Amino acid sequence: MSRNIGVTELVLRDGHQSLLATRMAMEDMVPICDQIDQAGYWSVECWGGATYDSCIRFLNEDPWERLRTFRQLLPNTRLQMLLRGQNLLGYRHYEDGVVSRFVEKAAENGMDVFRVFDALNDVRNLHSAIRAVRRVGKHAEGTICYTTSPLHTVEKFVEMAQQLCELGCDSICIKDMAALMRPQVAYDLVHGIKQACGSDTLVHVHVHSTTGVTLVSLMKAIEAGADIVDTSISSLSLGSGHNPTEALVEMLVGTGYSTSLDKSRLLKIKEHFAEVRPRYAKFESKYIGVETQIFDSQIPGGMISNMESQLKQQGAEKRIDEVLAEVPNVRKDAGYVPLVTPSSQIVGTQAVLNVLMGKYKTLTREFAELMLGYYGAAIGERSAKLIEASTKQLKKEPIDCRPADLLSSEWDELRSQALALPGCNGTDEDVLTHALFPQVAPKFFAHRAEGPRNLSQNLATAHADHPTAKAASKTTVRPISSPVTFQVRVGMNSHKVTVEPA
Amino acid sequence: MSRNIGVTELVLRDGHQSLLATRMAMEDMVPICDQIDQAGYWSVECWGGATYDSCIRFLNEDPWERLRTFRQLLPNTRLQMLLRGQNLLGYRHYEDGVVSRFVEKAAENGMDVFRVFDALNDVRNLHSAIRAVRRVGKHAEGTICYTTSPLHTVEKFVEMAQQLCELGCDSICIKDMAALMRPQVAYDLVHGIKQACGSDTLVHVHVHSTTGVTLVSLMKAIEAGADIVDTSISSLSLGSGHNPTEALVEMLVGTGYSTSLDKSRLLKIKEHFAEVRPRYAKFESKYIGVETQIFDSQIPGGMISNMESQLKQQGAEKRIDEVLAEVPNVRKDAGYVPLVTPSSQIVGTQAVLNVLMGKYKTLTREFAELMLGYYGAAIGERSAKLIEASTKQLKKEPIDCRPADLLSSEWDELRSQALALPGCNGTDEDVLTHALFPQVAPKFFAHRAEGPRNLSQNLATAHADHPTAKAASKTTVRPISSPVTFQVRVGMNSHKVTVEPA
Repeated sequence: MSRNIGVTELVLRDGHQSLLATRMAMEDMVPICDQIDQAGYWSVECWGGATYDSCIRFLNEDPWERLRTFRQLLPNTRLQMLLRGQNLLGYRHYEDGVVSRFVEKAAENGMDVFRVFDALNDVRNLHSAIRAVRRVGKHAEGTICYTTSPLHTVEKFVEMAQQLCELGCDSICIKDMAALMRPQVAYDLVHGIKQACGSDTLVHVHVHSTTGVTLVSLMKAIEAGADIVDTSISSLSLGSGHNPTEALVEMLVGTGYSTSLDKSRLLKIKEHFAEVRPRYAKFESKYIGVETQIFDSQIPGGMISNMESQLKQQGAEKRIDEVLAEVPNVRKDAGYVPLVTPSSQIVGTQAVLNVLMGKYKTLTREFAELMLGYYGAAIGERSAKLIEASTKQLKKEPIDCRPADLLSSEWDELRSQALALPGCNGTDEDVLTHALFPQVAPKFFAHRAEGPRNLSQNLATAHADHPTAKAASKTTVRPISSPVTFQVRVGMNSHKVTVEPA
Repeated sequence: MSRNIGVTELVLRDGHQSLLATRMAMEDMVPICDQIDQAGYWSVECWGGATYDSCIRFLNEDPWERLRTFRQLLPNTRLQMLLRGQNLLGYRHYEDGVVSRFVEKAAENGMDVFRVFDALNDVRNLHSAIRAVRRVGKHAEGTICYTTSPLHTVEKFVEMAQQLCELGCDSICIKDMAALMRPQVAYDLVHGIKQACGSDTLVHVHVHSTTGVTLVSLMKAIEAGADIVDTSISSLSLGSGHNPTEALVEMLVGTGYSTSLDKSRLLKIKEHFAEVRPRYAKFESKYIGVETQIFDSQIPGGMISNMESQLKQQGAEKRIDEVLAEVPNVRKDAGYVPLVTPSSQIVGTQAVLNVLMGKYKTLTREFAELMLGYYGAAIGERSAKLIEASTKQLKKEPIDCRPADLLSSEWDELRSQALALPGCNGTDEDVLTHALFPQVAPKFFAHRAEGPRNLSQNLATAHADHPTAKAASKTTVRPISSPVTFQVRVGMNSHKVTVEPA
């Protein structure tokens, strides 16, 4: 008898978030839900992460309506989401009451499995969300962000897993967002967690495929006892995305492990997303190959793109190598924080500023707050000089308490702010949309009634702008850049006319 | 102490053969040879397979000159080639004298490691080449073509390895051209060979990456004792190509195995081929993703493209699924031959004919010869009915001897034929070019003096034809297909002029 390995399908969330900038519209997912529902997955990740933001910012889709639709179309499936602990899906710390409310509403609308992480691996930032998930009787998955540094040892990660187990988590996730977890470490880590927390502790492994080695890491994690692994259907896999679901299934054939996945349904899912993908060509990640340099820089693919675009805005795109070299320094000064939303953006932006303006000549507000402990505790010691500079700049003292302990109840105020926005429907869900994205919510509420902006708008544009699409389209006319001669007839007269750029 | 794993770099031969239709011109390889030479590879595959054909057919390059150049530019490196046993690099069986002559000339021009395989795994077809390699004191690598069928068991493959060892091979290669070797089989096979042939038998593993699982297979092969593995630098890897060299290096970090490769040199090699690759965009394989359906059809990617193009010529491209379903039937009737050059072409073409003309209504000459044993012995029983039909059609009896035993000495005749061709330089190398490609050699000899046809011709065309290249080029003007209005000034007068397609 082989041991059954659960599989979480990522294509409806992290798959397109990693490869297509989170742009996939609901209408491109709906038609394949029946196959996904019956394929035999342990769970289907379909919400959270950047999808909420993308829904209201780009797609004019109500994220809560998206969740309800998945619930309806995937009746036999555990729905799973990614939740940034005390940040929820936003970019600041929320007070505990808002965290509870968010979890309750997500559960009510159909969410089953809550994968909860904190960018700094500060377990105190996970307490509130994990307790809320347990209160509503759903699956609480405590998450360890995997990263490498002189301080990040297997022992340290195992200690964190023990803390998560003590919180009553239903499973422990190892989240390797930059594909840094080599096979041997994957083995040691899963083995260590099983030893420390008990062999019946569910261990769930999430790896990206950017460095090309992590399917092997999944094999080793499984050999060490991992219970559930994450993959994305092959037609939306690899690069800065994830390992292909079908390859995982085939990899295990003949071993002491197997999955319950139905290969014929996987084929249909593959074909569906193979058809859908080219429509999002404009949003394709640049990281579709194998990038092992990440082992040295520890910088996830998405973070590099961000820094490149920041440099470009300053006309300094040539300085990317200096910035890449600066990131590890900034990370060290900040106490070796993992690089994942939002710490990746904070560290990346500061590295860009250090290169462009001089080392720490300017501190971003977020970086100063990170240095003062307002995002939580880091594993390493922070630069004393930078703590001093941050204190001076922000005119506030460093803290070592849980950041959310400093916040006072904010729900009622958020609620009255939301209700004042034209188009707000008065539900708690709308209040949460406003709470998470106060800049974007007003426009979304005002235009929500127009319905999803997908194929007819976003995609049409995306399609036309893509070079391949352009070349294929016979009606595209681009500005000329060299003289062109036409035979032109005006009335009865024919002229040879040469047109050149003005 | 970790065990050192040798690595063969494939980018100069199978890497571009699999991903860029073997089209890479020597001038795109020369500039990076110094880095390759010092990177620490066990060997560098750079010749044989389809490169000889491609050199004279498409690139107007003398393949022997290419070999000598590699020898000069890679002075510290074992040069490796792929040799199709008694077929050499051509598509028929050659008499033993020609086989010896080819091996001698290859050794003289700088070849070190001869990987010798037979499409039918008929060891008798390897005897002559392996003996010749041993005679000239070079490294003879006997090769097992891995495939799956009810008859292809680990035991059968291990038996073949034993036969190769008895022939005095310096190493045994497991060649998995369709990426069908799952991790557990890789382990069992390497383990079995080491057990049967002795633990000091060098085992060399060659896998393609088409199905997405074979980097894991390499890990398992290494755990079972494999000594050398094949990879291709990441910027020309994956899809129907091979696993990325850098990923192999990183995968082993922290395990009991390591490579001697220099990562900084690998990065330079990667960057070089990342720049070169887009110039061959026209020749890019369609198989750059993960295709696990191959586990069911057993059909290598290159073979599918062939069949698709045959169907297209008949205006029957829609019948590809019928053909894919027919291939396993034809393969069974032929005694479960592996599918690799030339058996893949023979079986594939017959499957196409069966679908288009009716089952075995027409037999190709090659298929009939395969059925009668003129390519060698197959592992399974062949269809008696088809043997009868083949006998009738070809008016010759089935054989069970080694096919080359029926051939009489042919060198002198090949030599006088070659010398009669304008432009033939009278060397044995030229006689071999004529012997291998009698259709192509005359044109090549006649035009050789014009020099390599690469960037200036082949590549320029390839570049201009590629849609992305077209879109990127600002001076491209394509025919208009809808009315366009220009403001045109002729002399002092300005006119609004509308131009539309004639």
